[in-house]
Amino acid sequence: MTFTWLKGHGTENDFVLLPDHDGRVHGDLDPGFVAVLCHRRRGIGADGVMRVIRADAAGITDAGEAEWFMDYRNADGSLSEMCGNGIRVFVRHLIDEGLVDASAPIPVATRDGVKVIEEAGDRLRVDMGTFVVGEHSDVSVPGHRWPAREVHTGNPHAVVFVGSVDEAGPLTEAPGFDRTVYPEGVNVEFVERRGERHVGMRVHERGSGETRSCGTGACAVGLATALADEVRPTPDAPVRYRVDVPGGTVQVEWTADDHLILEGPAVIVARGEMEWIA
Amino acid sequence: MTFTWLKGHGTENDFVLLPDHDGRVHGDLDPGFVAVLCHRRRGIGADGVMRVIRADAAGITDAGEAEWFMDYRNADGSLSEMCGNGIRVFVRHLIDEGLVDASAPIPVATRDGVKVIEEAGDRLRVDMGTFVVGEHSDVSVPGHRWPAREVHTGNPHAVVFVGSVDEAGPLTEAPGFDRTVYPEGVNVEFVERRGERHVGMRVHERGSGETRSCGTGACAVGLATALADEVRPTPDAPVRYRVDVPGGTVQVEWTADDHLILEGPAVIVARGEMEWIA
Repeated sequence: MTFTWLKGHGTENDFVLLPDHDGRVHGDLDPGFVAVLCHRRRGIGADGVMRVIRADAAGITDAGEAEWFMDYRNADGSLSEMCGNGIRVFVRHLIDEGLVDASAPIPVATRDGVKVIEEAGDRLRVDMGTFVVGEHSDVSVPGHRWPAREVHTGNPHAVVFVGSVDEAGPLTEAPGFDRTVYPEGVNVEFVERRGERHVGMRVHERGSGETRSCGTGACAVGLATALADEVRPTPDAPVRYRVDVPGGTVQVEWTADDHLILEGPAVIVARGEMEWIA
Repeated sequence: MTFTWLKGHGTENDFVLLPDHDGRVHGDLDPGFVAVLCHRRRGIGADGVMRVIRADAAGITDAGEAEWFMDYRNADGSLSEMCGNGIRVFVRHLIDEGLVDASAPIPVATRDGVKVIEEAGDRLRVDMGTFVVGEHSDVSVPGHRWPAREVHTGNPHAVVFVGSVDEAGPLTEAPGFDRTVYPEGVNVEFVERRGERHVGMRVHERGSGETRSCGTGACAVGLATALADEVRPTPDAPVRYRVDVPGGTVQVEWTADDHLILEGPAVIVARGEMEWIA
């Protein structure tokens, strides 16, 4: 089996891209193959796989003006809806290969609907859509307990403000949280202040453990910090925060129409043809 | 920059192979390039890189009958002498490509001298050479302290017998050891009995943390277990132990001429041409 592949990352959230424009290379894309491809020692290694396929070839009926569908799979082979770091890498590839017109906003179909991405210098801006804010409930690690803000940005998040992100400890175990608030689990972000409109965070993702970056988590952190700072966007002045994640830096923008825009880097590191042997 | 590559692993110790038979593709093989290639998120990801180069092209003067030189680099780009799991993957590649005659023992030049490998069904046997046994000194993890046997098999090892390898705990920190015994650090193996001539182990490698497998460590464990069992090899009957590592299973053989033979699997998972972009 020989196929084209690329490897790329956004703030060290890394992906294998599989160009399959007409859906004829990988068929239904076997979950077992995705899992071994993503295995960091028995395969190539990645946080996920993104098949690059035309929306009509993928049978997407609500793609609107989006020509391309981000067929995103988790590292275990399961389907996933959306990834704020992944879609930047996906669009970087589309632009590099001349598959889209980068002079205008680029619509991309995902399982979470059509997302719109814009190029901004060497970074990419993703409209992550709207959000829902909840109340505070406690999260805990051994020896510490804090109130955390509930924010839904595609995924459920619990945002904790700490003096230093080191207070979260090694995070080898999932933090404790209230299952009545988060019946399906939660990503927990630990946030420290680093300057005006500038924070640093660590994140524990449900099912993945501590990770180098989480796009929806950075969005939740930007919003929760703005709420804590009691700042609000206006049509003339969106609220912007710099959010340092372990794998790099992103910017989160809260607009007056209550969308969150995630802006960050996306890098393609290699591409080629691969013959799969194992 | 475009080059041929392969990815393979031996008991989940994984490597990128760079065929460069005449040394004209990668020149001196830049350490910075090796480091980013091995980075699991900003590159492809591997425990090390092995350049496949003819011994004469690499300027190896003591290669004897060995045609090929295993130019092994650690994941940080530094030079390394030898890797018992890596050399199996290296030879699997040489056999697959018809670059050696697998019907006879295969000599391979390494920075630790010429090693001889034999095919044994779908596994490979590596003569890891001789060893030096020392005395006991204590190693410790939080809440536990044990006497450990000192065994040198290319690298220094401290072998601890435990009731269960779980007693070693999370191993997120290096175990404590006696710096007067191991001035340059030590790999620590935790060994549990699993049957007759059958043990399981976990290993903490100096500089790497807990790993999925360690070839010289498995050899040290096989030998230390034989010493504890008070069995000795004879010319007719070498001593053999099955050693389960987290990434798979190997067999360690102690021969009457005091060599250690490591036998285990080696898998090539993919190969292709790669254009390096980052």
